[in-house]
Amino acid sequence: MTSPNSPYRELERRFERLHHLGGARAVLGWDNQTMMPEGGAAARAEQTALLGVLAHEMITHPALGELMDRAGSEPLEPWQEANLREMRRQWRHATAIGADLVEALSKAVSASEQCWRTARPANDFAALRPYLARVLALVREVAAAKAAAFGCSPYDALLDEYEPDGSAGRIDAIFADLEGFLPGFLGRVMERQAARGAATVPTGPFPIARQRDLGVRLMRTLGFDFHHGRLDVSNHPFCGGVPDDVRITTRYDEADFTSSLMGVLHETGHALYERGLPAAWRAQPVGQARGMSVHESQSLLIEMQACRSREFLTFAAALMREAFAADGPAWGHENLYRHYTRVAPGHIRVEADEVTYPAHVILRYRLERAMIAGDLALDDLPGAWADASRRLLGIVPPDDRLGCLQDIHWPDGAWGYFPTYTLGAMTAAQLFAAARTADPDIMPAIARGDFAPLFRWLRTHVHGQGSFLSTDALLTNATGRPLDAGAFKTHLETRYLE
Amino acid sequence: MTSPNSPYRELERRFERLHHLGGARAVLGWDNQTMMPEGGAAARAEQTALLGVLAHEMITHPALGELMDRAGSEPLEPWQEANLREMRRQWRHATAIGADLVEALSKAVSASEQCWRTARPANDFAALRPYLARVLALVREVAAAKAAAFGCSPYDALLDEYEPDGSAGRIDAIFADLEGFLPGFLGRVMERQAARGAATVPTGPFPIARQRDLGVRLMRTLGFDFHHGRLDVSNHPFCGGVPDDVRITTRYDEADFTSSLMGVLHETGHALYERGLPAAWRAQPVGQARGMSVHESQSLLIEMQACRSREFLTFAAALMREAFAADGPAWGHENLYRHYTRVAPGHIRVEADEVTYPAHVILRYRLERAMIAGDLALDDLPGAWADASRRLLGIVPPDDRLGCLQDIHWPDGAWGYFPTYTLGAMTAAQLFAAARTADPDIMPAIARGDFAPLFRWLRTHVHGQGSFLSTDALLTNATGRPLDAGAFKTHLETRYLE
Repeated sequence: MTSPNSPYRELERRFERLHHLGGARAVLGWDNQTMMPEGGAAARAEQTALLGVLAHEMITHPALGELMDRAGSEPLEPWQEANLREMRRQWRHATAIGADLVEALSKAVSASEQCWRTARPANDFAALRPYLARVLALVREVAAAKAAAFGCSPYDALLDEYEPDGSAGRIDAIFADLEGFLPGFLGRVMERQAARGAATVPTGPFPIARQRDLGVRLMRTLGFDFHHGRLDVSNHPFCGGVPDDVRITTRYDEADFTSSLMGVLHETGHALYERGLPAAWRAQPVGQARGMSVHESQSLLIEMQACRSREFLTFAAALMREAFAADGPAWGHENLYRHYTRVAPGHIRVEADEVTYPAHVILRYRLERAMIAGDLALDDLPGAWADASRRLLGIVPPDDRLGCLQDIHWPDGAWGYFPTYTLGAMTAAQLFAAARTADPDIMPAIARGDFAPLFRWLRTHVHGQGSFLSTDALLTNATGRPLDAGAFKTHLETRYLE
Repeated sequence: MTSPNSPYRELERRFERLHHLGGARAVLGWDNQTMMPEGGAAARAEQTALLGVLAHEMITHPALGELMDRAGSEPLEPWQEANLREMRRQWRHATAIGADLVEALSKAVSASEQCWRTARPANDFAALRPYLARVLALVREVAAAKAAAFGCSPYDALLDEYEPDGSAGRIDAIFADLEGFLPGFLGRVMERQAARGAATVPTGPFPIARQRDLGVRLMRTLGFDFHHGRLDVSNHPFCGGVPDDVRITTRYDEADFTSSLMGVLHETGHALYERGLPAAWRAQPVGQARGMSVHESQSLLIEMQACRSREFLTFAAALMREAFAADGPAWGHENLYRHYTRVAPGHIRVEADEVTYPAHVILRYRLERAMIAGDLALDDLPGAWADASRRLLGIVPPDDRLGCLQDIHWPDGAWGYFPTYTLGAMTAAQLFAAARTADPDIMPAIARGDFAPLFRWLRTHVHGQGSFLSTDALLTNATGRPLDAGAFKTHLETRYLE
């Protein structure tokens, strides 16, 4: 339909460049976390910053606005239309704020992130406060500028970068539903768990080479293709690289293989989403992941829904015993299932189980919204954190290290990101329930270590859609309705009160 | 002297960008050879090509020519003057040819290199011929355009990219001297070697982990800082990365550790040159390596001059025995010295010893000059190769696989590169002789595994000079005269006819 010289085609060419520039940055970022010797940090920072500047120059190029206007009058196919919509979204975010503000924020974030790395272990909120204040002030400037440009609230403007078309209004309603449910539910789970007794924890040491082999074996079971990806080690596990070369990481603990192994399965969920994105649209915005809540839904669907199920753990327990040449009561599938579904309120978000995790997220969401709105001052953050933790989790952190200093997100400038974790968990539950209804063989197959039926459904309904649909439309097409907390609550009740 | 807004300072900012873009490409290139799964090749090619295009756009930016003219009238310090000179050199190479020719050559090289990868093992020169013909035609176009722009011969214009200010006239004279010396010398070496009997070769298997540990230990002995670098595995060993994060590679053979180990020491020589480049000029052209012959001189000075010496091998033999828990006649230092200084004419350049290596290079240099001049047609290449090999090495390759198909350089577009190998070997000999005269403790220290005196001299006279001086001036300052074959011939006579 479109001619090779049309404005739309010219936009495709420019966004393809942006995509490959992003791919180059992704490889540098992966290397940074996995391979780079410490002494390479300064040079790497310059390389990464330069690629960021070049990308910013490309997307804010004066010709782009006019090209998008003209492309809007071209007769486009539906995927091209959607691609143009996603180009506009990226362009809108980039052009809403001036280069000065981008640079100021980037520098403030570097300084504050660096300070956080020492302030956190030193439990020194006072040291971080001025750096964090600078970041918050600039993020509020960004939010105000984007809000004016997009015609939405400042918080929604921030949210849109991670959760396209997301709104605090929708999140409030869903989180209120969860908040009404969880405290009572948690009480019942804890009672039941106490009555049943604790699982026996397998004791090591578990040699790292064997942990790795087991992880690789299960990655292959899930369908990870090592011709198009790698598994490596980093301090903070992540999924990086590009769709045709997806690189996930984990960290190993010789005393406990269970946590690293589940982390590998989690990142494999992210990786298989990336691999399943529509190949014909690889280098275009519409070919990219739909947003952070959908991305997190794919890791949590694998980790929480599929791989912490009794079916999968029955299959996997045999491989675990084989990998570590182990046997005995700790290695029975029922015991491992209980170990992997243990619930215990704690202070640290990243160590939380799926029942208490939402409380951690709701806490941060409430506090960051108040700070962006100017209703909560940084000086009052530790106190507000303690109050919210008491109310939501029933515990009060003894210090800021276990409280408001624990996460990198705020010092790192990622305001508006936290809600996507719990939106992702709920999305995972809703998608998994729909998949199992659509194909009753999914769970029996998983019990045999066969993930093909599950991924057949996910490829069609989620992965292969890229960013063609809005998140709401994607979920409605796949599950019959937009996101709500229903499937997640049902999942928790089924698993924890069976 | 120069103001922050002067044209010179603006040039420094632009070349700093180019440097960091080059650094990003270097990391992608390293990853490509060491880490990347095969399925990532297409995406990586796009990323690398894009960074190449962006670098070309930066250096051919219309403002650069005028900035360089204006900077030429500024009052510059000597290093700034030299920096401007090196900026001009890079700019001259980039602007001498049009973007169309750059792109055409880049595509022709990709196609021909890809064909070479299968044509070589298949011994199929006919299959490569059309691809190579296309590359040669375009390289000749490049050479003609650069020759016109620089006011020199086409071959010298190609040479300048690898060997700044190099000329075929100089090379002819030096190679003629070598060619008069080597055949007779080789005969005497072979006689002497036959009389002395062959060295006993240590027999394996040699576990790769132990080979690696030994390599790392010797790298540390030489002064390699793993805070600023790595050792990995690749099919074709190389030294990559950036000066503050230098990455060398090797490949291991369980049946023979000696070749891989010497390869590690060779690449360590390259790496320590990169690390020793002047830190204050890191991101500028004048802070970069002087050229390929000086770079190769630093790897060969370490490998051939220092590490194949009796002094070093006496020290290293003890570590080798320890690493492999081995003993017996093969592991004596005198036997290992004989093994590492064995001379044997063969068909493959990369396997050649230091006595026969120059013949391989002279052969290629003569043939590529004739092809660039249009005096030798590709159809006649296999025959011309056989004739030259008979004359220079006394052997005729039984097929093209062991003849004109063995090297990647021509299919890869690197015409004018070959002479730098032998220029590097001679430069290494001349520098090493001067260093030993200047500091008589260098060899006794090496015998103790102490490379500090050697690197003190190299840092001052070579590494820390970056591209401040021309190659001729660098050598004259360091050794009292420009390059000639004298020190190399003396070295060979001392080592092989002692």
